[in-house]
Amino acid sequence: MRFFSDNAASVHPDVMAAMARANHVDTAYDGDALSQSLDRLMSDLFETEVTALWVATGTAANALALASLCPPYGSVLCHNDAHIQNDECGAPEFYTHGAKMSVMPGDGAKISAETLKAQLAAAPGGVHWTQPHALSITNATEYGRVYTPADVAALGAIAKAHGLGFHMDGARFANAVATVGCAPADVTWRAGVDVLSFGFTKNGGMSAECLVYFDKAKAAGVVERRKRAGHLLSKGRYMAAQIIALVQNDVWLANARAANAGAQKLAAACGPRLIQPVEANEVFARMTPDEVARLRAAGFDFYDWAQGEVRFVVSWDQPEAEIAAFADAITRL
Amino acid sequence: MRFFSDNAASVHPDVMAAMARANHVDTAYDGDALSQSLDRLMSDLFETEVTALWVATGTAANALALASLCPPYGSVLCHNDAHIQNDECGAPEFYTHGAKMSVMPGDGAKISAETLKAQLAAAPGGVHWTQPHALSITNATEYGRVYTPADVAALGAIAKAHGLGFHMDGARFANAVATVGCAPADVTWRAGVDVLSFGFTKNGGMSAECLVYFDKAKAAGVVERRKRAGHLLSKGRYMAAQIIALVQNDVWLANARAANAGAQKLAAACGPRLIQPVEANEVFARMTPDEVARLRAAGFDFYDWAQGEVRFVVSWDQPEAEIAAFADAITRL
Amino acid sequence: MRFFSDNAASVHPDVMAAMARANHVDTAYDGDALSQSLDRLMSDLFETEVTALWVATGTAANALALASLCPPYGSVLCHNDAHIQNDECGAPEFYTHGAKMSVMPGDGAKISAETLKAQLAAAPGGVHWTQPHALSITNATEYGRVYTPADVAALGAIAKAHGLGFHMDGARFANAVATVGCAPADVTWRAGVDVLSFGFTKNGGMSAECLVYFDKAKAAGVVERRKRAGHLLSKGRYMAAQIIALVQNDVWLANARAANAGAQKLAAACGPRLIQPVEANEVFARMTPDEVARLRAAGFDFYDWAQGEVRFVVSWDQPEAEIAAFADAITRL
Amino acid sequence: MRFFSDNAASVHPDVMAAMARANHVDTAYDGDALSQSLDRLMSDLFETEVTALWVATGTAANALALASLCPPYGSVLCHNDAHIQNDECGAPEFYTHGAKMSVMPGDGAKISAETLKAQLAAAPGGVHWTQPHALSITNATEYGRVYTPADVAALGAIAKAHGLGFHMDGARFANAVATVGCAPADVTWRAGVDVLSFGFTKNGGMSAECLVYFDKAKAAGVVERRKRAGHLLSKGRYMAAQIIALVQNDVWLANARAANAGAQKLAAACGPRLIQPVEANEVFARMTPDEVARLRAAGFDFYDWAQGEVRFVVSWDQPEAEIAAFADAITRL
Repeated sequence: MRFFSDNAASVHPDVMAAMARANHVDTAYDGDALSQSLDRLMSDLFETEVTALWVATGTAANALALASLCPPYGSVLCHNDAHIQNDECGAPEFYTHGAKMSVMPGDGAKISAETLKAQLAAAPGGVHWTQPHALSITNATEYGRVYTPADVAALGAIAKAHGLGFHMDGARFANAVATVGCAPADVTWRAGVDVLSFGFTKNGGMSAECLVYFDKAKAAGVVERRKRAGHLLSKGRYMAAQIIALVQNDVWLANARAANAGAQKLAAACGPRLIQPVEANEVFARMTPDEVARLRAAGFDFYDWAQGEVRFVVSWDQPEAEIAAFADAITRL
Repeated sequence: MRFFSDNAASVHPDVMAAMARANHVDTAYDGDALSQSLDRLMSDLFETEVTALWVATGTAANALALASLCPPYGSVLCHNDAHIQNDECGAPEFYTHGAKMSVMPGDGAKISAETLKAQLAAAPGGVHWTQPHALSITNATEYGRVYTPADVAALGAIAKAHGLGFHMDGARFANAVATVGCAPADVTWRAGVDVLSFGFTKNGGMSAECLVYFDKAKAAGVVERRKRAGHLLSKGRYMAAQIIALVQNDVWLANARAANAGAQKLAAACGPRLIQPVEANEVFARMTPDEVARLRAAGFDFYDWAQGEVRFVVSWDQPEAEIAAFADAITRL
Repeated sequence: MRFFSDNAASVHPDVMAAMARANHVDTAYDGDALSQSLDRLMSDLFETEVTALWVATGTAANALALASLCPPYGSVLCHNDAHIQNDECGAPEFYTHGAKMSVMPGDGAKISAETLKAQLAAAPGGVHWTQPHALSITNATEYGRVYTPADVAALGAIAKAHGLGFHMDGARFANAVATVGCAPADVTWRAGVDVLSFGFTKNGGMSAECLVYFDKAKAAGVVERRKRAGHLLSKGRYMAAQIIALVQNDVWLANARAANAGAQKLAAACGPRLIQPVEANEVFARMTPDEVARLRAAGFDFYDWAQGEVRFVVSWDQPEAEIAAFADAITRL
Repeated sequence: MRFFSDNAASVHPDVMAAMARANHVDTAYDGDALSQSLDRLMSDLFETEVTALWVATGTAANALALASLCPPYGSVLCHNDAHIQNDECGAPEFYTHGAKMSVMPGDGAKISAETLKAQLAAAPGGVHWTQPHALSITNATEYGRVYTPADVAALGAIAKAHGLGFHMDGARFANAVATVGCAPADVTWRAGVDVLSFGFTKNGGMSAECLVYFDKAKAAGVVERRKRAGHLLSKGRYMAAQIIALVQNDVWLANARAANAGAQKLAAACGPRLIQPVEANEVFARMTPDEVARLRAAGFDFYDWAQGEVRFVVSWDQPEAEIAAFADAITRL
């Protein structure tokens, strides 16, 4: 019973079916009808004209987005716990050609407007220090917390005032939107976001993320960068098919709600063990080594987050019975 | 009827079935059982211990291989018509951090031992000129020609004598092996090749290539580079499944033979129009604009290669009837 | 008697004196009065408002200029014999983060308008091929040939029509201007050049080149790139002092004329041996191995350019007697 | 009266004289006799066989050294206040092609063995996190503190145990050695340092640092990287001349002692204002805005380090009278 991460879950039947339907010859790369429909699909979903591209991984999506926003000699403001800082083996540095991640603290891996202001105020100008060109936040965060439209808008205003591009790592964007209940537009471009890495892989896809540029001018060069990174798959129609299958009929939201609901059950079982409010599909809890061992012995797999801390992640396809059994096991500790 | 390229063909049923079988939760990235079995699979196929990694595209496979062989301040010797030089939007330069492609001529996009020797002899030493560190050839070539084991061994000996790493772009490796009829080992490591980009996407896969390091020491850092490039897919098992499905039961060879046979039929129809001997699944022929227009009008799609030249590519799944109809149409021109 | 290159000549007394005068504490980097005066100095010389920066080497100047004009995923059109292609160990690739040099032939290392047009016409569009973003020419060329204002303007018009940035490598700009006798503006911005690497090191400087941006907008980011490349010397005043000393009183032109005049004497001695018209301070001549050996034995040092070809370069400080002796020795061969 | 930094001081008369003596034609780049003598000079000074190269700036020296020690996908452990992290506009990221700086705290910008051990222990393994490949310390530090041979050896042992390359940024190496009174070897290779950026520019040079490789194998590729960075000056003899002039007759130590002694006088004047022990030529002191204003009004220039903190730096050529006047002014506050 795997609560280790949502990144290795199964692929949603609708997605598998859509990929099977795409299994005939069509134009290569992103010239096929499915790929060509992504701009429209995402423009409708986000209620504004966007440029949308499929990419195989969240790491590639994030790194391409940052390369669009930050020159090699600039820096990207992000949280100290951000995925782009800690979990991508330097992909942002690779794609931006050496920009610096300029990190900030913040509870629950969230950046507050106050912290951002202070970071910018403390930054020396001039040519010796890498000047900030972009802000990147993760929603839901690496601690399963969400930014509300107001949270994002506060950061967006600061970003705009300082001429920073604004990127949102939305590997779990669906989970955040499902929790907040807002329009996708509200927590993105209406709040100042320029580019979104819209994650589908963790949400029932096989390997598909959508890079959504709300500021279409900022997309200049991204198709060249994608090609050059070896991310222009020749049979791109299978990528587009995944995204379309998840967006149609709101499968993405249904999947996110299922995962979030499961996390709430685990959260209830954790009670005072919780380290963070559970706002998406991730649960962070305190646990002794002995307790950890007992859960593992009972067949539950999860992540040792830090000394005395564990992380449970509920996937879109996690069986109810598994969740109930895990909640029960936690309760009985 | 698409003879434009084999890069947008359908996915082989065995591959689709294998992907469907992989559709359950498993360890993420390349920790799953399928991914973990690739070293063994490829070691058996190549009759030597290798390090094997899945990668989503040939461009990424080539660029990763070159980054393993050539430092940023070096150069890669390749043919003037090489895919790495012309068709990857600078991916080799991106992944190697700026190495130079040092190009050579040669009939049929083949590099001869004589040309390679002359290129190396003419190269000035010292620090001002980028020194060659790697040799890269494409087999089958961009003109559908093949290198025999002897051809490769002649180049391999020169590469070894000059301390060059030796890469083979095998986007159509299957087609080459099917034509030559040798063991895969004969035309690779036994002939001095250090790293092979073993292509499956054009051969019935969806998006899977296998990077095979015959010199395992040269694989140092490649997993980090793959991650950093955003090419470590979290659900890697679907990648491995494709490769395994194609290697098992020699589907890769059957598919290549089918495509090659189709090309021979078109070659026969072309007769004196042929610009190159047809040794794989690509046909290059002379054709007037009027003839091109008539074929197009009859429903055949193909590539305008150059002034007065066209390229036809036969895919693994090309219906016999389509091939026959096309051959007939060419004959009747 | 060294006719090997002008890159190792002595430093002009005016330059040495100016550096000695600068030998007192002043603001660091380029905050000192001398560095701050460069924009004015160059704006006056070129009769338009420019942004001017000192850089220690021509390689750095060229590479910075190209990074200003070409994104990592683009290409730079240049001559096959260009210094940026052959003699900088990949500096342009390093500074541009992997742009490609797209080379063209042309007599005397000159690019003709016809060749440039053909190269652009042959270039496929799209995302697979690195699209051209810049044109770079060398004046005087690597074969000691010069571009006239009309030559440059013809190229500049094409560059403009194709949206290319236009760079001139002016390592021997002084020699070219001295020969053509035009205003520096005529052969640069008035003919469409955006950025000039204005060389002083070969012309009596110690280690100082001036990067001159005629299109000031294209200078965005160059000071950051210079710093990041380790080229923002803390005692920049000694750099500025060199440039000022050479521009004041037209020392740069006097030095170039002296070198050019010496080359004419050698050219006259070479007569039918000449491979290229002598238009600057370089002489290319045919010579047998035996003749080469005899000149060497007589104490003359020069460059073996190619099989049966030699290069002589006359420096600004080359003693008249040395030149006369060499001309005499050549004549007597 | 400038106590702002030692980076803009005048050039020592011996250096100016040596440069004047070098003012005749010689072999270009580093082929001249002076450049060729650097290995010997530094091998003697450090009592072991080294590879030594001149570089024009400390930023270039540091970045080249780090590129020798750390691959693009690795990280460099350094202090949070390190020059390489804060003051080089991302030069280490540029030269290493995107390695990450992995920062640590520590009083006085010194890294303690305990902190280094903890940082390494906390680092996750695997391919997602950039693995550490190098350690870089600054001696004297950015806060004018020094590492003793024992301090360095403790770090060196940890570096060796973890397979890390060990770099020392010695922009003020002379000041550190002058204070500690050890052999240069004791605080470098005998303590595990692989590469030293040996600074001369702040110590009476014009623009010359010496990159000293104690582990000669680690110098592989550095000459290519230097060329490619545009740092292979064609008249390198003037660079070598500076270094030789400062090492001969121990001018480097005399200059450092002069600067350090001046700093001690200011330190005595500061008394309880001192934020850090004064161990080199830098003084960090608490000061109110009003006090700062009074000193400025009296003609003293210095650096506003942080809120309520100032930095004074004494240069090698600072007149005794200036120092005395400044000490007096501080005392009278």
